[in-house]
Amino acid sequence: MDNLNLDQHISGQFNADLEELKTQLLEMGGVVQQQISDAVDAIEQADSELAEKVMVIEDDVDNREVSLDENCTTVLARRQPAASDLRMVLAVSKATRDLERMGDEAQKIAKMAIALNEEGQAPHGYVELRHIGDIVEKMVNSTLDAFARFDVDTAVKVARDDKAVDREYKSAMRELVTYMMEDPRSIGRVMNIIWALRSLERIGDHARNIAEHIVYLVKGLDVRHTSVKEMERQVKDA
Amino acid sequence: MDNLNLDQHISGQFNADLEELKTQLLEMGGVVQQQISDAVDAIEQADSELAEKVMVIEDDVDNREVSLDENCTTVLARRQPAASDLRMVLAVSKATRDLERMGDEAQKIAKMAIALNEEGQAPHGYVELRHIGDIVEKMVNSTLDAFARFDVDTAVKVARDDKAVDREYKSAMRELVTYMMEDPRSIGRVMNIIWALRSLERIGDHARNIAEHIVYLVKGLDVRHTSVKEMERQVKDA
Repeated sequence: MDNLNLDQHISGQFNADLEELKTQLLEMGGVVQQQISDAVDAIEQADSELAEKVMVIEDDVDNREVSLDENCTTVLARRQPAASDLRMVLAVSKATRDLERMGDEAQKIAKMAIALNEEGQAPHGYVELRHIGDIVEKMVNSTLDAFARFDVDTAVKVARDDKAVDREYKSAMRELVTYMMEDPRSIGRVMNIIWALRSLERIGDHARNIAEHIVYLVKGLDVRHTSVKEMERQVKDA
Repeated sequence: MDNLNLDQHISGQFNADLEELKTQLLEMGGVVQQQISDAVDAIEQADSELAEKVMVIEDDVDNREVSLDENCTTVLARRQPAASDLRMVLAVSKATRDLERMGDEAQKIAKMAIALNEEGQAPHGYVELRHIGDIVEKMVNSTLDAFARFDVDTAVKVARDDKAVDREYKSAMRELVTYMMEDPRSIGRVMNIIWALRSLERIGDHARNIAEHIVYLVKGLDVRHTSVKEMERQVKDA
């Protein structure tokens, strides 16, 4: 299998193009990471102002997606990359889309923060939100680190963390349904927390997707739709 | 702007490659379409057997995604396409991912059908589910047609329909929350319908995404993050 040889091009400009794509991706990742963190804080503090900030930044994230994807297409057309260079461009393009979706979900969480500010705090669900929010924020952080350093082991760890998020999410859902049955007047407000938790769970999925793109980029393996165990085995053997 | 000239290549094999990508995409679309239709039927009829069928087919859809994406990468590496050919390959690759996500959501709906079969029918929500299900199924159908015929007008119509789905979905949510407050013992079962509706709404989003890929493919325009009105204007002017 060809190894990553991003530093060995005859054309210095080609190197610069690839490096630029990566830099833009990581910058976009930094913005989205802040969005997620702010969105969770906005719910906890019923802070509509912070939530509005998350929603305003969404335009910037959208623009970054369009621009980065255009840059990927330009590199494909001009440089006609092959092997690991091609994988690099495709991985950036796919990861961009996942980052944009994460931003979308952060925006949905921010909307729930505004709803909760208007309708009053929910009686339950904040502990679960903070807990799952913390795991997901760490996952996003690790994913960006792993992309920066082409670090497959960290990518596999993100995939493993996503299983934990799914478990925590399911357990939180069961609890919140029970709370709603006990206190039906709170349903509207608890539903806002439920939607926010759902968005966090989706952000975890997108982090896992990016982790899979990293494995593809570095190892040339398509590990989508494989279990974490199988992913670990394949990465070890490659 | 370069126009679509998929029939004018010097290499007959290149034509065949591009046609093959499109054929595979449409075949995958057909499978996913059936999955969605079966998943909605499975909920209505609390038919666990049909739901299991949807879930089994998911493996096939996953395999198609991996294989189609690999074929796209091979065409990029071997043929080094430019202009509308490059857009064709990228649009297929992106649409594949949306189709796979639709399949995921159909699988989630199927899971809700199984849950409803175990926990008993929900007292409300089936009318809304059928109604939104019908719109979404038609959207998916139109999207695949539009891809087959490079038909931008139909693609724009799909984007418009997605706004209708969002409205219907919001209205259904409000009603179902009210029902849950009136009859808290039904919360668990109504939540199953709510998750299924959420998945349908997501499928509508993915249909719109594919519609946007079609506009990009045919017109070279990136209409993501633009309103339907703006999309119509841009398409008309291009």
